[in-house]
Amino acid sequence: MKLGFIGLGAMGAPMAGHLLDAGYELAVWARRPEATTALAARGAHVCATQAALAARCEVVITIVTSSADVEALAFGPEGLAEGFAPGAVHVDMSTIAPGMARDLAARYAERGIGWLDAPVSGGEQAARAAALAIMAGGEAAVLERVRPLLEILGKRIVHVGEAGAGQVAKACNQMIMVNAIQACAEAMHLARAHGVDLAAVRHALMGGSAASKVLELMGERMVAREFGAGIEARLHHKDFGLLLADACRLGVPLPVAAQTGQQLNALMAAGWGRDDTSSLLRVLEAEAPV
Amino acid sequence: MKLGFIGLGAMGAPMAGHLLDAGYELAVWARRPEATTALAARGAHVCATQAALAARCEVVITIVTSSADVEALAFGPEGLAEGFAPGAVHVDMSTIAPGMARDLAARYAERGIGWLDAPVSGGEQAARAAALAIMAGGEAAVLERVRPLLEILGKRIVHVGEAGAGQVAKACNQMIMVNAIQACAEAMHLARAHGVDLAAVRHALMGGSAASKVLELMGERMVAREFGAGIEARLHHKDFGLLLADACRLGVPLPVAAQTGQQLNALMAAGWGRDDTSSLLRVLEAEAPV
Repeated sequence: MKLGFIGLGAMGAPMAGHLLDAGYELAVWARRPEATTALAARGAHVCATQAALAARCEVVITIVTSSADVEALAFGPEGLAEGFAPGAVHVDMSTIAPGMARDLAARYAERGIGWLDAPVSGGEQAARAAALAIMAGGEAAVLERVRPLLEILGKRIVHVGEAGAGQVAKACNQMIMVNAIQACAEAMHLARAHGVDLAAVRHALMGGSAASKVLELMGERMVAREFGAGIEARLHHKDFGLLLADACRLGVPLPVAAQTGQQLNALMAAGWGRDDTSSLLRVLEAEAPV
Repeated sequence: MKLGFIGLGAMGAPMAGHLLDAGYELAVWARRPEATTALAARGAHVCATQAALAARCEVVITIVTSSADVEALAFGPEGLAEGFAPGAVHVDMSTIAPGMARDLAARYAERGIGWLDAPVSGGEQAARAAALAIMAGGEAAVLERVRPLLEILGKRIVHVGEAGAGQVAKACNQMIMVNAIQACAEAMHLARAHGVDLAAVRHALMGGSAASKVLELMGERMVAREFGAGIEARLHHKDFGLLLADACRLGVPLPVAAQTGQQLNALMAAGWGRDDTSSLLRVLEAEAPV
């Protein structure tokens, strides 16, 4: 099976590398050609346009930043849709709006092209370790066709439902995760005001009902005040923009997510968008330049 | 070592049972004498007053509901302080205000009596399985003296700091846990509005960065709509009252905890205080009687 890959960032680069390692013939395209250098040296074929990439591939995987990016890759000038033969599949692993995923699936279906929204969770660490959680939305038959590829990238591949359902699950994931980071920050801030050792609090809590991946990883960063590493907060800010707009459209009350969204706005205003989301602790501390 | 135990509720009854099973001589007292029947049948000695209990024990463990309850047990009429010999220890495993824990420790210290605040996490299930997380505040020497007892009740025993520090850790625990329940409820509510299968969403998320004890246990209850079981929401409501008052006194901003506190208020107003805290999902659904 000939594969294409677009989106060679912190997540995509190791993912594309795993597919090469597994022996797949891989074509790549990037807006910035220098992003393809490392993979080209390992045997990936570099294409001049997205359409050219699609023309030589049965399956194209994309993992980029925004809904608009994915739409442009797919249906913009020289987009994937111009190159795909009927029966080809676009697997989008970006985090985008569920409605956009549904729209793209419908437009592809008119041309006999398959679609899967398959956003991921686990961050760069899981991308490098091929241990991502993958939340798939689309037709079951399409998922089964590409499942061997996804199994190279992730450990838990769940078919959540029809097109867009993967993105709904990802929105739920981001909401739960970033709210947990905010709650962890509030807990640390309260403990410090009491003069209590934060490392001891985190250690104690990991044994009980408050235990979570976030407390384990982000809690540790807060204790160590290592705000530079990890996931860039601007990406979570983008995700909250999407999910709160979605909630508004649907009339769904999300009171705590809305509040966390405001804290992310304050984080961005303070200039910490490229730092780790554990910087939500710094927002509470009001160290921000005013 | 002669032990006393007060607070034979859903948590305390199995805990006292574990101490009996371990071969300790156990005395009990309860406001409602019928609460002692089962333990008395297993060999526990029933005392007429808290003071009488304290007079025959080197260590007394209490696990009751409120700060006022603990203060009354300790320094009210016929309280523990009247009975304790110097060198005795009061281990309070209730969830109370950190300031009350510090006050009681200081008052006991004047009489040569030891104190440990040692609140727990893990719920009834962990109490029955002797797998509680225990967060201890007080002098290290006092903790070491009672550690063999705590090891009969729990799996992770952490010395967080001085008197009150155990309660600070517990406040952090409750804040993180109940915020996670609220975030889980919001995620489920959003997924349902999208017509996406909640069980699949929960399963997908358990493999990634949003994984937590809360998503595992309370998420399952929300999917199954089993709101009757588990931890009574009124207890979390009480805990949030404490921690938000504490934050107000200290000038610590807790924006998301404050919002979750409002959702707990709505839950109480709807009459679900004796149901599980996963009822926060029902608050979002606005099924409450108005």
